[in-house]
Amino acid sequence: MFNKILIANRGEIAVRIIRACREMGIETVAVYSEADKDAIHTQMADEAVCIGPAAAKDSYLNIQNIISATVLTGAQAIHPGFGFLSENSKFAKMCKECNIVFIGPDPDCIENMGNKSNARDIMIKAGVPVVPGSNGSIKDEKELIKIAKKIGYPVMVKASAGGGGRGIRVVYEECDLVKAYENARAEAKAAFGDETIYMEKFVENPKHVEIQILGDSFGNVVYLGERDCSMQRRNQKVLEEAPCPIMTEELRKSMGETAVRAAKAVNYNNAGTIEFLLDKHNNYYFMEMNTRIQVEHPITEMITGVDLIKEQIKIASGEKLDFTQEDVVLNGHSIECRINAEDARRGFMPSPGKIKDLYLPGGFNIRIDSAVYSGYVIPPFYDSMIAKLIVHGKNREEAICKMRRALGEFLIEGVHTNIDFQFELINSEEFIKGTYNTKFIENNFKIS
Amino acid sequence: MFNKILIANRGEIAVRIIRACREMGIETVAVYSEADKDAIHTQMADEAVCIGPAAAKDSYLNIQNIISATVLTGAQAIHPGFGFLSENSKFAKMCKECNIVFIGPDPDCIENMGNKSNARDIMIKAGVPVVPGSNGSIKDEKELIKIAKKIGYPVMVKASAGGGGRGIRVVYEECDLVKAYENARAEAKAAFGDETIYMEKFVENPKHVEIQILGDSFGNVVYLGERDCSMQRRNQKVLEEAPCPIMTEELRKSMGETAVRAAKAVNYNNAGTIEFLLDKHNNYYFMEMNTRIQVEHPITEMITGVDLIKEQIKIASGEKLDFTQEDVVLNGHSIECRINAEDARRGFMPSPGKIKDLYLPGGFNIRIDSAVYSGYVIPPFYDSMIAKLIVHGKNREEAICKMRRALGEFLIEGVHTNIDFQFELINSEEFIKGTYNTKFIENNFKIS
Repeated sequence: MFNKILIANRGEIAVRIIRACREMGIETVAVYSEADKDAIHTQMADEAVCIGPAAAKDSYLNIQNIISATVLTGAQAIHPGFGFLSENSKFAKMCKECNIVFIGPDPDCIENMGNKSNARDIMIKAGVPVVPGSNGSIKDEKELIKIAKKIGYPVMVKASAGGGGRGIRVVYEECDLVKAYENARAEAKAAFGDETIYMEKFVENPKHVEIQILGDSFGNVVYLGERDCSMQRRNQKVLEEAPCPIMTEELRKSMGETAVRAAKAVNYNNAGTIEFLLDKHNNYYFMEMNTRIQVEHPITEMITGVDLIKEQIKIASGEKLDFTQEDVVLNGHSIECRINAEDARRGFMPSPGKIKDLYLPGGFNIRIDSAVYSGYVIPPFYDSMIAKLIVHGKNREEAICKMRRALGEFLIEGVHTNIDFQFELINSEEFIKGTYNTKFIENNFKIS
Repeated sequence: MFNKILIANRGEIAVRIIRACREMGIETVAVYSEADKDAIHTQMADEAVCIGPAAAKDSYLNIQNIISATVLTGAQAIHPGFGFLSENSKFAKMCKECNIVFIGPDPDCIENMGNKSNARDIMIKAGVPVVPGSNGSIKDEKELIKIAKKIGYPVMVKASAGGGGRGIRVVYEECDLVKAYENARAEAKAAFGDETIYMEKFVENPKHVEIQILGDSFGNVVYLGERDCSMQRRNQKVLEEAPCPIMTEELRKSMGETAVRAAKAVNYNNAGTIEFLLDKHNNYYFMEMNTRIQVEHPITEMITGVDLIKEQIKIASGEKLDFTQEDVVLNGHSIECRINAEDARRGFMPSPGKIKDLYLPGGFNIRIDSAVYSGYVIPPFYDSMIAKLIVHGKNREEAICKMRRALGEFLIEGVHTNIDFQFELINSEEFIKGTYNTKFIENNFKIS
């Protein structure tokens, strides 16, 4: 096992990793930007090294300075957290070359999964369902009709050069297909100077359901249930829960085993997440694999009892997984609300500044993963997430009541937060029913 | 189920109860003394009623004012917490007369168990082991020798009128018995003017192990494992853990079933605790039954998943227990450290005052039950316990590492606390081995 780990991150995830290390008897090195010298991760670690100015590209993304800090402090491994360098295969490779253990999968895994079209090909080969599509551009109307029939309506015709929603048409019936195709081509040509069109099945109002996996370097892979992350605003997760409220035992097994197959296809060795779109007929399609720990990992920890950060460290140090799929038992229900310093009434504009007063909820089955303290000045340079409030209940109903109670206790004065917005979400009918999908916030909140 | 509950207590237990009520959708009424108008329980409840001046006898022990506040606010039930009126059978009876539900067992249970000699008789009848003794005074030397032989050495000869450790002798062998008896008699006569002597088995260096039980009004009683509360300073518990580190499956079953028998003997109906002395040969003896929730109840909640406060409320409202003994599964290990505002270096003198700065530990499996906030002024009138830090680990080793980590994060500025002392306890060899007994602090810390 390592004696010392450098944490190449900031905020609550840096604190989370320092805590895990400390409980394992491992010394920690924090790195910090000039804007973060009073940050809690800087204060909490055994050592702290300044790696550059406030801008992330000069500090938390500064590979050279981070590697230097690691060598300088004698840390044997780097935990990249999420974001920043966590899915940078070049960084992972450089660590290897410098004899520093990167706490994550091999650089090849990161690279393979980072290239979305490559990842899609690997998944198709491994028998993992992907969103059916034309696999390349469409030659003519005849092919158009043929492929649409094959993948089934509704379909989406999309400009290859597209972006910002332009050059896209959703088609529900064959009679509308050709016209939509022509419109999309015309729009694409006008907007991008390129009328190439391809086709994909349109997954209507899907849920975002993801499977947490752990793989070691001996080929063992287990799945740790799923997370429902459908509550999104502009593709950003806001609130997550585990298990998914509409999950069945059978579907979980199918998705879990598919996720394990996906991980094995790339010899995956560390914590990872396979994200799926789940439609209302319980069809699921591979979206992408995140080759790192995720923001919402605590809800999986709460229902499985497995400390994912500790597992990451153990796996990276060469240990075998000390449990099997049969040992993974899901217990109760967990919900996480991301607490962001942002002004929900002004388009969720970030709200940095000084926290004048702070009261964190507590009690039975309340967990706070945060990077805040009373008097802390939230810098304007980074992500606005400042805390995660995680609850566990013996069932979903209790978890919702607990979240409501805990959000009500949460007090942050001095900056705006999204706590009131989270209240609206957990009190909404769709959330309580559990049937909400990724379009829920867009469809129900003008403020989004 | 009740619509509104009044909480006849203060501090962290009042907060704990308010939280449970809120999660159950029950409105809460706090009562507070004039010294507690800024206390968190006063602020957190839906309503708050001042019941008198700072002195507990005029407020938290003021039965008339508490009953009036209940009637006035229309609360249907009173939760007494621990301490104050929680084991006052007169109060419980008065609630009944006023058609207010007392959240605790029937007044008869409280009364029967409150009288220690009565409780001992009931336990003997129920076949619960009690510390063997002479059952009354000793007539002469012949009887002395006979009884000592019967109960087995070591024995204690004790002055009936005794107190403060005077008139007590521990005897390990028969050859020393008569002399010790004579000495004790002489000392007792000189000190109390009464030479009556009785005899009890001397339980050497016992552990304090207690069994949590829950009984409903339909005669169902379950036990929820044990707590090791041997870490005591002057008979005050300081740190508790569950399970007891030296427990065996067989002994747990035996003690648990004995506790259930004890509870059934008095038709016990609510949460209660049977405290035992456990000697090094795994013999255990009934000490007393606490007919209320206890300070250390969270460690049982952490390893069983059962919310004891919610169960108390459900039972008091007439519900049946919705689980059986077979459903009670102990999971992992939990430790609680009581965080007291006291100066360990000055004989643990209470240290009231203003909390200038506060940082509470967080993260996976860390629980804080507290009554503090940044800027709070701890009044000098009540108990010095201001928070409980509770951790859960998948095993004892992890729980200890977690507690060490969490204590290290805990920051309270402005008042003295016992956090350093707790550090010494969890780092002590005897604690780590798990073999410590009730004499550990006395024997190892001069400061006690």
